[in-house]
Amino acid sequence: MIAFANRESFAAAIDDLPAASALASAQARARQAELTKPAGSLGRLEEIAVFLAGWQDSPRPRLDHVRCVVFAGNHGVAARGVSAFPVEVTAQMVANFEAGGAAINVLARSCGAELVIVPLDLDRPTGDIAAEPAMSEAECLAALDAGAAAVTPDTQLLLVGEMGIGNTTPAAALCAAAFGGETRQWCGHGTGIDQAGLMRKSAAVDQALTLHRPHCVDPFETLRRLGGREIAAMAGAILAARRSRIPVLLDGFIACAAIAPLAARNPGFVDHCIAAHCSAEAAHELLLDRLGLEPLLRLGMRLGEASGAALAVPLVRAAVATHNEMATFAQAAVATSR
Amino acid sequence: MIAFANRESFAAAIDDLPAASALASAQARARQAELTKPAGSLGRLEEIAVFLAGWQDSPRPRLDHVRCVVFAGNHGVAARGVSAFPVEVTAQMVANFEAGGAAINVLARSCGAELVIVPLDLDRPTGDIAAEPAMSEAECLAALDAGAAAVTPDTQLLLVGEMGIGNTTPAAALCAAAFGGETRQWCGHGTGIDQAGLMRKSAAVDQALTLHRPHCVDPFETLRRLGGREIAAMAGAILAARRSRIPVLLDGFIACAAIAPLAARNPGFVDHCIAAHCSAEAAHELLLDRLGLEPLLRLGMRLGEASGAALAVPLVRAAVATHNEMATFAQAAVATSR
Repeated sequence: MIAFANRESFAAAIDDLPAASALASAQARARQAELTKPAGSLGRLEEIAVFLAGWQDSPRPRLDHVRCVVFAGNHGVAARGVSAFPVEVTAQMVANFEAGGAAINVLARSCGAELVIVPLDLDRPTGDIAAEPAMSEAECLAALDAGAAAVTPDTQLLLVGEMGIGNTTPAAALCAAAFGGETRQWCGHGTGIDQAGLMRKSAAVDQALTLHRPHCVDPFETLRRLGGREIAAMAGAILAARRSRIPVLLDGFIACAAIAPLAARNPGFVDHCIAAHCSAEAAHELLLDRLGLEPLLRLGMRLGEASGAALAVPLVRAAVATHNEMATFAQAAVATSR
Repeated sequence: MIAFANRESFAAAIDDLPAASALASAQARARQAELTKPAGSLGRLEEIAVFLAGWQDSPRPRLDHVRCVVFAGNHGVAARGVSAFPVEVTAQMVANFEAGGAAINVLARSCGAELVIVPLDLDRPTGDIAAEPAMSEAECLAALDAGAAAVTPDTQLLLVGEMGIGNTTPAAALCAAAFGGETRQWCGHGTGIDQAGLMRKSAAVDQALTLHRPHCVDPFETLRRLGGREIAAMAGAILAARRSRIPVLLDGFIACAAIAPLAARNPGFVDHCIAAHCSAEAAHELLLDRLGLEPLLRLGMRLGEASGAALAVPLVRAAVATHNEMATFAQAAVATSR
């Protein structure tokens, strides 16, 4: 298990990232050119096969073990009325996950992913970011480590998602701290808040930025002050995956916001990530643009829970299956040109 | 089996289309509002569940039997050098389908669809549309009927696709005849033709339109003069599906072009169709716009074979699974608002 001993080792890990295998990628690209289809005609499926080959360091990537981890946390800032739902819903939804009744249970089953739920101190919300740091240094390290601990080395594709009433508010603050821009660009209606709630949310983000931005000197401090437990855990999991060269399917706005401070420090951080879905939360489009990622899906969803990531798994499976199972022109005796 | 006795009965079928069940749709919509997620947060998955409920006339739609039919045909116009591949490839690819080595074999297996291949007189190409009608009246009726015959009544979701070297040329002509516009808007690089080939293709489409457009007085005549056997078969299959209220996942540019004359006559014709994928063939975007359809996927593919439709099946399965299997707020004791 990878653990982050302190803020310095966290920063060092972000600055020293392993790369995909250029050899396995090239071998996979050569195989794609031999398959019975016009060159390039499988579009992004071809890119995904080559991407997986590189990160799995194998010209024939596999997806026998897809792991989906959903982290849950509660937020002090929720007391400001920034969400359409009461904070109790975080724990109620975790119970729903454990009983198998939520969207992600159905979607993980449907796409053949192992589902792991990691609730993080739900009875102890983080500090209200509009008035204080979300977490102490020890709390933030514990959350990062909980994320890293959820990544098992046999994972061939990792999905991370979240549940946390109010967490589009810290997510908006993280994006603004990482990439700048107006607060209102990063604030949306989340699970369905009204206009007055949206104004409370923007005000909370503005206060949080005024208070903390001068201190956000590195990704650790940004996550600690403006994030939350499930958010830091996602960042820890996605970084741990990179250190083990495990490719990641990014979920929605919150999951992408969790890595915004890491990507702002090192733009190559997202090289092992595929954006699964662009959320209906308008700021996600902007965030994906800043991260340099083009999502696989745009289905107007805004649920979190890794639901967008799970929906994209069959596309990745289709990429692997066509890559590994199609006949070559030579095998099928099909002419390659006029 | 539905058969089209003559051109008049074909036109009559297009003018008298059954509708989805409003009751089953309303029941499905009511169930969606009870599931443990913020209202609307599953985006297009919710719309798909309601759509399937309506067409299957059941508040709990099912996908036990997904049928994927790929029609193959050869085209006289291919002799004009309008494709990057020789005409022999159509039969070679049908052999590849039958041996299980093509992309659609892998994708149909991957998405749990039954795959049926229907080659149509491959050794007898249609007439060269730039000089004569593609088919006689009897040939066109036979192709329409072959399409209708491929639709079995137990099908819960139908995918139709095609293989036919040179068939983006008749597809472009059909689109121009159905929806107007400049020939060059409807002509693209197909499987990968060069600029000189594209000019030959545009010239062939222009000649075909000059020759046939004055006679394209109904969808039958348009398909007969400008289409091809696999194209007419797709139109026949999609119309037969509608008459049995079977929902359809449309594949790429050729499959959509096959129904362009039907949709131009009756815009409600596409109500039982979901556009699975927008092709890299530029004219497909324009055609989907004319058909009033928003595709589920945009993955830069341009293969045909029902590959885009097959890729969208897991999304439809996810829509059905979340609809049928998620817990309600009451079942899970989750609060619905603040």
